[in-house]
Amino acid sequence: MTNLTAGPPLVTLPGFLAHWQGHRRLTRRVIEAFPEDQLFTFSAAPPMRPFGALAWEIQQVSELTLTGLLTGEWIEPDWRGGTSTDRARLLRHWDALSARLDAEFLQVDPAFFGQTHRLPWGEMSGWEAAIYTIDNEIHHRGQGYVYLRALGTEPPAFYER
Amino acid sequence: MTNLTAGPPLVTLPGFLAHWQGHRRLTRRVIEAFPEDQLFTFSAAPPMRPFGALAWEIQQVSELTLTGLLTGEWIEPDWRGGTSTDRARLLRHWDALSARLDAEFLQVDPAFFGQTHRLPWGEMSGWEAAIYTIDNEIHHRGQGYVYLRALGTEPPAFYER
Repeated sequence: MTNLTAGPPLVTLPGFLAHWQGHRRLTRRVIEAFPEDQLFTFSAAPPMRPFGALAWEIQQVSELTLTGLLTGEWIEPDWRGGTSTDRARLLRHWDALSARLDAEFLQVDPAFFGQTHRLPWGEMSGWEAAIYTIDNEIHHRGQGYVYLRALGTEPPAFYER
Repeated sequence: MTNLTAGPPLVTLPGFLAHWQGHRRLTRRVIEAFPEDQLFTFSAAPPMRPFGALAWEIQQVSELTLTGLLTGEWIEPDWRGGTSTDRARLLRHWDALSARLDAEFLQVDPAFFGQTHRLPWGEMSGWEAAIYTIDNEIHHRGQGYVYLRALGTEPPAFYER
């Protein structure tokens, strides 16, 4: 493989994986922090979706991104797969993907990050696709923090991963 | 400088700068989207702070991070500097830092990202410090989206940078 870099990397594959997994652990704690009867029903500002629906979106986009980075195929998920209102089922899918990330992410070709890919929502580099996935998770999870506060529940510490 | 990498970079300095500035442009639009009398007063879930206070925090942490990456000095800001409730003043500071980022960020030594630094809130690598700053911006801006929705205002599109 040609070495295209002129210096040390801003972040390595293991560093990026640790970053992603830290966010997944925090989002998992937010999912768990909701009162069970509010996770899929409550919105602090309707028509915004309940946090359970946002969490399923995060899960499906993350799955798409890992598969895309590994195979070059970016297939829009069947969003109906994210309509279950069973927290235990959501967490099972969540944990399975986290395990898959640990097992497979380091096999991603670093060159993939610099190349342009065609995603269901437009053309972007692998870096942009990967970081967008995490950004979208942080964005929606931040909204979940407001929901929790509105429900009178202390959210998990943002800086703890 | 020794080349420590084994392959192409996940992200380059210009790529990271574009990522950061895209977020700053979006957050600026969120600051502007608030009704002026609500920016520094409204909270969708008290005791959460109004979005204007969160935006000042983002601004001060971003300033600290740019200076830290450039000089190795990570100095806790005087948070009282972020208590103005004048939107025009906030936007002037915001734009001045965005211009500074464009002018100075590419001078950051890439090796800095892999080294460990002592920040006011703990030891971390330059990558972790830099990406944490952006993550914190996304987190609080996501909260601002809920505030805007609660105020009946359509927030700017998340994917537009």
